[in-house]
Parts: sequence; structure tokens; C-alpha cells
Amino acid sequence: MKTETILPEESTLDPQDWNSIRALGHQMLNDMIDYIQSAAQRPAWKKPSSYAVASMQQPLPELPQEAADVYEDFFTQVLPFNTNNIHPRFWGWVQGGGTITGMLADMLASGMNANVSIGEHMPMYVERQVINWAKEMMGFPATASGILLSGGSLANITAMIVARNHFNNNIRQKGLQSMPSQLIVYGSAETHNCVSKGIEVIGIGSDNFRKVPVDENYCIDLKVLEQMIIADKASGYTPFCIIGNAGTVNTGAIDPLTELSAIAKAYNCWFHVDGAFGAIPKILPEFQQRLQGIELADSLAFDYHKWLYVNYEVACVLIKDAAAHREAFAIAVSYLANHERGLSSGPDPFSNYGMELSRGFKALKVWMVMKENGMQKYRQLVRQNIRQAQYLAGLIKQEPSLELLLEPSLNIVCFRYVGDTTDTEQLNLLNKEILMQLHEKGIAAPTYTFLNGKYVIRVAITNHRTRSSDLDQLVKAVIHIGGGFSL
Amino acid sequence: MKTETILPEESTLDPQDWNSIRALGHQMLNDMIDYIQSAAQRPAWKKPSSYAVASMQQPLPELPQEAADVYEDFFTQVLPFNTNNIHPRFWGWVQGGGTITGMLADMLASGMNANVSIGEHMPMYVERQVINWAKEMMGFPATASGILLSGGSLANITAMIVARNHFNNNIRQKGLQSMPSQLIVYGSAETHNCVSKGIEVIGIGSDNFRKVPVDENYCIDLKVLEQMIIADKASGYTPFCIIGNAGTVNTGAIDPLTELSAIAKAYNCWFHVDGAFGAIPKILPEFQQRLQGIELADSLAFDYHKWLYVNYEVACVLIKDAAAHREAFAIAVSYLANHERGLSSGPDPFSNYGMELSRGFKALKVWMVMKENGMQKYRQLVRQNIRQAQYLAGLIKQEPSLELLLEPSLNIVCFRYVGDTTDTEQLNLLNKEILMQLHEKGIAAPTYTFLNGKYVIRVAITNHRTRSSDLDQLVKAVIHIGGGFSL
Ligand SMILES: Cc1ncc(COP(=O)(O)O)c(C=O)c1O
Ligand SMILES: Cc1ncc(COP(=O)(O)O)c(C=O)c1O
Repeated sequence: MKTETILPEESTLDPQDWNSIRALGHQMLNDMIDYIQSAAQRPAWKKPSSYAVASMQQPLPELPQEAADVYEDFFTQVLPFNTNNIHPRFWGWVQGGGTITGMLADMLASGMNANVSIGEHMPMYVERQVINWAKEMMGFPATASGILLSGGSLANITAMIVARNHFNNNIRQKGLQSMPSQLIVYGSAETHNCVSKGIEVIGIGSDNFRKVPVDENYCIDLKVLEQMIIADKASGYTPFCIIGNAGTVNTGAIDPLTELSAIAKAYNCWFHVDGAFGAIPKILPEFQQRLQGIELADSLAFDYHKWLYVNYEVACVLIKDAAAHREAFAIAVSYLANHERGLSSGPDPFSNYGMELSRGFKALKVWMVMKENGMQKYRQLVRQNIRQAQYLAGLIKQEPSLELLLEPSLNIVCFRYVGDTTDTEQLNLLNKEILMQLHEKGIAAPTYTFLNGKYVIRVAITNHRTRSSDLDQLVKAVIHIGGGFSL
Repeated sequence: MKTETILPEESTLDPQDWNSIRALGHQMLNDMIDYIQSAAQRPAWKKPSSYAVASMQQPLPELPQEAADVYEDFFTQVLPFNTNNIHPRFWGWVQGGGTITGMLADMLASGMNANVSIGEHMPMYVERQVINWAKEMMGFPATASGILLSGGSLANITAMIVARNHFNNNIRQKGLQSMPSQLIVYGSAETHNCVSKGIEVIGIGSDNFRKVPVDENYCIDLKVLEQMIIADKASGYTPFCIIGNAGTVNTGAIDPLTELSAIAKAYNCWFHVDGAFGAIPKILPEFQQRLQGIELADSLAFDYHKWLYVNYEVACVLIKDAAAHREAFAIAVSYLANHERGLSSGPDPFSNYGMELSRGFKALKVWMVMKENGMQKYRQLVRQNIRQAQYLAGLIKQEPSLELLLEPSLNIVCFRYVGDTTDTEQLNLLNKEILMQLHEKGIAAPTYTFLNGKYVIRVAITNHRTRSSDLDQLVKAVIHIGGGFSL
């Protein structure tokens, strides 16, 4: 009666035919498992076809399209031209390769459609479990706090917000313009650019990030750091935060963290460690010494989607002082207030610990993949990647036409083809050409960086599918392509 | 030889037995489809069992666990105690319900493990396609730019960073402390707290967010806004940004956007619209008038995971001036520099348009779900939710024991049980108790807010599974529970 007159035909986005979407889902799942299982048989990279690119220049769809047809579009135009970090010879930037279990966990999380922000429901507890595990892995105390984020960038920014707001508790309300003297952040010149961007985001400005020079191992020069702090103080500036790198993006360099921590303490600075991938060997007994000092940090950022091989995207920030963490973000508003019982009760909302309110259930894949592998299997794989980097370095050193830029300190190898040439400009162009051909021929997908003005091919092995034979192939191909050019 | 001595046993996280993980995956998929299909047959909310909660207080796993056992743990301890926005009577906060296709898309995205940050691969183009569609939906020009984000919170923050950096291009490098006068942001008192938090995050400080009073419809008072701006200027402050609400969280109020845009122009302010859910009816012809002015905004934030029913998490920010957007975030570093060919070529990196570097393939679910539904189906569903809100308001008005706080302007209905009482304090306690019982009995999951000091039950219908009969049930239950208390 009333219902029928006001709401004549009620509809839903649930399928009309559950069987056909179910069948389609099973087909997708089979296809994806096949796809991952056969990754090694395809080229390491494939340029998107112009047809596929053009297929992404369509007007806003007006009419519905069958789910099966939508999938067909995906299968033919999207899937074949992946980033392809699932390939055993993908070593570009720093990307993990994901796992089948991670994929399935993302399906479960998405099907639950959990919003892990607030409320009394299990996803809230799963994320807390994952964060407690993170503390254990990284030697942080049980009283520390943390939150999962999309990546190392947001993890670093989140930590710096806590550092800033904790430094002076007027900043949240009154803003930086109320501060009498300029706040200054320090980190090595090799610090990832996301830190510099974060410093801009939080209003301090990248000119106020002091890029401290590095030594020959690309580690921060402690003496210069201290001189800079002293000079800044003398000029009336306010040092408040020091960034330590546990694994720089270019070479995997690990700053002297214990010493940095001591300097931070001496100058009343927050000590943040960017351990995006390089913090992970903290799980290896043989790296306890090298990574000593991580546990002294006030905050630590690291990624699960890099060297813990969890599917994109998920990272973590840990904050030693949980109260400082909460005080940096918590806002009390009535529509989010906790109740004693019901859905609106539950643990302290995650929105009190970060910039986000709505948040997906990223914790589930971490929880499932970590349970599936255990530290035992993770140790084996992380160790394997480090050994593979050493193996590759060994291969390069044996080849007179190749130059190893430095001994790998972790899992990153930087090298170049030199042939008989010494001209830097010529070599830079040649190595860039070699890299582009490695991609175009689908042989391998490392990326590159510049070290002291030299363009180098950069192999970052956060890849659980890489075999030493893949590294053999890379070396052979570089020599072959490089040799094809008469210099 | 060498391989064997250095790397005696190479391992992988790929399954040893592909068939068994494949079978497990199919089981998971069946379970999840069953789970979603049967959502209405379960309670709207269920308190996590103490056993489940305790199961999330385990030490870091040392040994591997079979994937099937991990799934069993999920199935018994996690899945039964979901946030449960997939339920037809979930109307808490503002949460969409997700779809099967969205879930499957997340599986595909996660299996591809795409990092949609940089490089020449199709996921980069899919996100551009989705953003172009967003511009079409929202009446933004094709020259505008945009980026997908985790939620409305980050979308609002991202827009405010662009506004701030564009206001004075010294801010990125020199920071806010270099600005001669305090920057000020304006928005109604009903503005979502994530805006206030964003203003803190970017260093301006929440005291410098002027909460402009609202009228009886909870819309911003334009006169007072202008007076505040004039007073601030007279005091030597620098107004630089005005926030307009297209759908406030409490009541769905839509500020007079065209007028706000004019004021922003007159005072040289950036005009940002928070349209987290309330911007979506822009797709309805009958809302062109009410939502006029969205297209005049310098930036707009809206969520896909709310009123477009896409699975958590995904939102969008659009910026009219693409150059301003890029200038707010782009950083040139060698390890991210574009090449002419190969994997390192490709479209302008998304990291030039936001805080994140690594980013998952959130665009895929949006692309698939929007193709599947088309605007035609979306119009039908969004319209249906608005009509359902009117229907519920009608039911409430017919019931003498209930009070409708205001006519719903969109999809949010605020009401309370009053019985024969007028004592606010007593009614606040009673309605909170009613809400908690609605949850505990598993009847329905609205949440609550305070309007003029009155605790109200707040029903936000961004739910494609709700039927009018579900609203009948809610009203009946509230009257029943409320009537059980003698006041
Ligand atoms: C050392 C370091 N820090 C931070 C980041 C940024 O992390 P994400 O890409 O997860 O945002 C990276 C990325 O490669 C990195 O190598
Ligand atoms: C009006 C408004 N703005 C912003 C937000 C925050 O969006 P999100 O939860 O996606 O971060 C919300 C959430 O409910 C909202 O209602």
C-alpha cells in the first residue's frame, strides 16, 4: 500500500542472477591463478597496446553492461599490460610481488566491505593484532601504538605529524604560524623524496629539511649533522626531528641509527626511522647489529607491500609514545562518540591515530599472509633476496665490461655497462638505452638511478619469485645489448 | 655450480600445491557470495565473541600455518563479526554496502598487484579513465585533474594542500612560518571533523578554521561568513579558503554553493566542496538546481565507497586547475624520472598529484562497477535512497511517539522516540538506550548524532539493499523498545 505507492519498484545492485555472477567469479579466480602461476612465461614488461590505451578514453557509461562483458574488457585491455611486479625478473623501484593468499584475503576483505575506522566489529581487532605483531618484529614495546596505511609515504607523513604536534602542543590548534622560530628537520641527502614531500605537506617547507651529506657508503655524515644542528640553533632555528634511513631507496644504505638516536636525544629532537623496506631484515638474527637502533626510534615507517611481499597496498607506522600518537589526531565529535554497548562501542577508533576516517580492511591480508608464512618462512625469503643481491654483485665483478658501483648492503645492486669507455655522458646514454631495451625486449624490469652523476641500472630484489638463474639472464642480456653498441 | 654454492635452496611464497590453493580460493569465493546473498537473514549487528577477540591476542607467528587453517580462523573468528554495512538495515555513519562485482574487482586488482604510481602500464590509464568520468559526473571541465584516495578525509586534505600551496607558492619550500599573516579557512559549524583535522595536518591549526553558524536547515549563514571574513581581514589575517558542504554528515544539509563560490571569488579564496556523499545526486536531473555550484568549486571531494556503493576503500578529489594540483605535489628525483620508452615511460606519475607514492589499484573496482551499472542504474538507486528517506520521514511523522527532527534534504533522517516526555536529558538517555538495543537485538544499525543538544537516531541510507519494509521494521522496533520504558 504505502510502500507501493511511494516506492513503486525497489531495485538493488545485487545480481539478478546469482549463479551467473558466481560462475563468472570462479572464472576470474581461475584466470588470476593461472596468470600468477604462469608469470615467468611472459615477458617481464609489455607496452600497453594503443587499442588498450584508447579503450580508456570512453565517455561516462550511461547504460549498464553485463558483468561478463566488463570482465572481458578487463581481461583483454588491462590484465595483459600490468605493472608486472609479479614477474621473477621485476626489480624496478622497490616493489614486492604479492601472493595468492594476499589476493584471496583482499577478496575476503572487499566482500566483507569492512570499514576499519570505528565501531565494535572484528576487523578492528585484526588490525590491532597486526600492529602488535609489527611491534614484536621491530623491537618496539607493547605499549607503542601504530596504524596501517597505504604506503611508506603516508607512514612517514603520519609520523612527522605526530613529531610536530608533540613538539609543541599548540601546533594542532594554533598552527605553525604561532611558533616563534622555524622548525627544522634533518636527514641524509639520500632520504626518500616522500619525506621531503611530507615536510611540505605538514607546513614546514622543504627548505627546512636539511639534507645532510653522506659518506662513501651513502650513510649520513654524523659530524656534519651535528654541525648543522648547532649552526641552526645559533641562527635561532628550532631543530625538532631527525630522520634515519634503514635502507635508502638508491642503494639500501643503513644510517648509523644508534648514533642518530643519541644525537636526537641530545638536541631534544624526535627520531624517526624510514625503514620502508630496509627495516625488514630486523627479523634476521644476523642483522640485529646492522639494524640496531631501530628500536630506539620514536617512530618507524615500513611497508608490507615491499619486502614482506604482501599485495598492494599496505604499510605501517609505529609510534613509541601511544599518547603522543593519539594526541596528534584524536578529535571528539558527537557523531563518532563511543557508546557502552552495540555497534558504536568497541576499541579506540583508528581515526584517533591518523588522517583517515573510512579505511579498508588492509589488515586482513597482512594477518593471513603472516600467519601462513610465519617468521620462519619470511626469514628464509628475505635472506634469500639478500644473498641474491650478493650473487648478482659477484657476477658483475667477474665481468670486465660491467661496473659494480658499490657492494650491496642489503638487496639493491647498482651497476652499469662500461665496455671500453670512460666518458660519463656517453655511458649514461648507453645505460639508459640498455635499460629501455631490457624492458622493451621483455627480458627484465630493473629501474635506474644516478650515483655521483652516473646513470646506473638498479636492481632491487624484493621478489620472492626471483631465482639466481634470473640474475644470470640479466647479466647476459646487459652485456649482449651493451656490446651491440660500438663506443 | 656458483648458484648452488651461494644459493643452496631457493624458495618462493608461491604455493607448492597450486591445486589445493585453487580449491581453497573457490571455496572462499563460494562462501563470500553465499555470505553476501544471505546478508538479510543474519542480524544487522553481532557483538564479537570473547573467543574471537582473544584469538587476536596471539604472539607473532613463528611457524607457517596451512592456508586452509588460516582461512578457517578467518571464517570462524572474523567473518561472523563484520562491520556489516552489507546488511539491508545498516544505516550507520555513512557507509555504502559494496557489491559482488566490486569484490571481484578487488581480487583482480590484488592479484595483478599493480602499483598505480608511476610507469607505463594499463592500471595508470584505468585510473585516468575513472577520473575523467568523475569530472563528467560532477560537471568539472575535461582540463581538470584528480586522483583517487582512500576516503573523503584524504580527499579533503589533498584539496586543502593544493589550496594552501597555490595561495602562495613560497609555502611548499619555505613553509607556513614564512607567511606574514595567519591563513584562515571558513566552513559551516556542520562541516565534517575531517576538515578540521586536515587543517591541523597541513599546519594551519584548527583555531584558524572559522566555524560559521548555520541556519535552521543546518546550512551555512552567508551573512555571518562574510562578516567573519571582513573582520579577519581587518585584524590582519589572511582568508584563503572556504569550504562548502554538499551534504553534511549530520543531516545531509547542502550549503548554498553558488553563493559561497561568489564570496570566495570576491575575497580571493579557494572554494572547496566536501561532497563526500552529498555530491552524488549531481547525477540526477532533479538535483541540478539543489547542487548547483559544485561545478564552480576549485576542488571537490567525494567518496565512491559511500553513495556509489563501491567496496571500501575509494574516494576522489577533483581539482579544477590541473597545474595548481601538480605544482602542489610534483617532485623531480632521478629514481622516478620518466624515460622515453620502456616501463619507466608512461603517463605523468600519480605521485605528482598527491601525498602517496605506492598506491593500489583502487581504480579497477570503480571502473568495473561503473561500467556494470552505468549512470542509468546509479540514478535509479540514488533516487531510491532519497525516496526511502522521505518514506521513513513520513512514517515517523505519522507516529505520535516519534519526533522527526527535520525534513530530510537528502538521504539522512534524524528522529527520536519521545513518548510522553519532554525532558531532554531523559530523552537523550532513552534514545541512546534504544539505539544500543537496536544493535544488540540485531534489528538495525543506524547510528546517532546530537542536534541542538538532542540525541537523535540517525539513519543514513546509502544502502542499495534497503527495502521500504526494512524502514517499517525500524520504526516498529523503535516504538516497541521505547514503549518498554515507563517515563
Ligand atoms: C626508503 C623508502 N622510503 C619511502 C618510500 C615510499 O614508500 P611507498 O612507495 O610505499 O609510499 C620508498 C619507496 O620506494 C622507499 O624506498
Ligand atoms: C560530509 C562528510 N565529509 C567527509 C567524510 C569523511 O569521509 P571518509 O570517511 O571517506 O574519510 C564524511 C564521512 O562520513 C562525511 O560524511
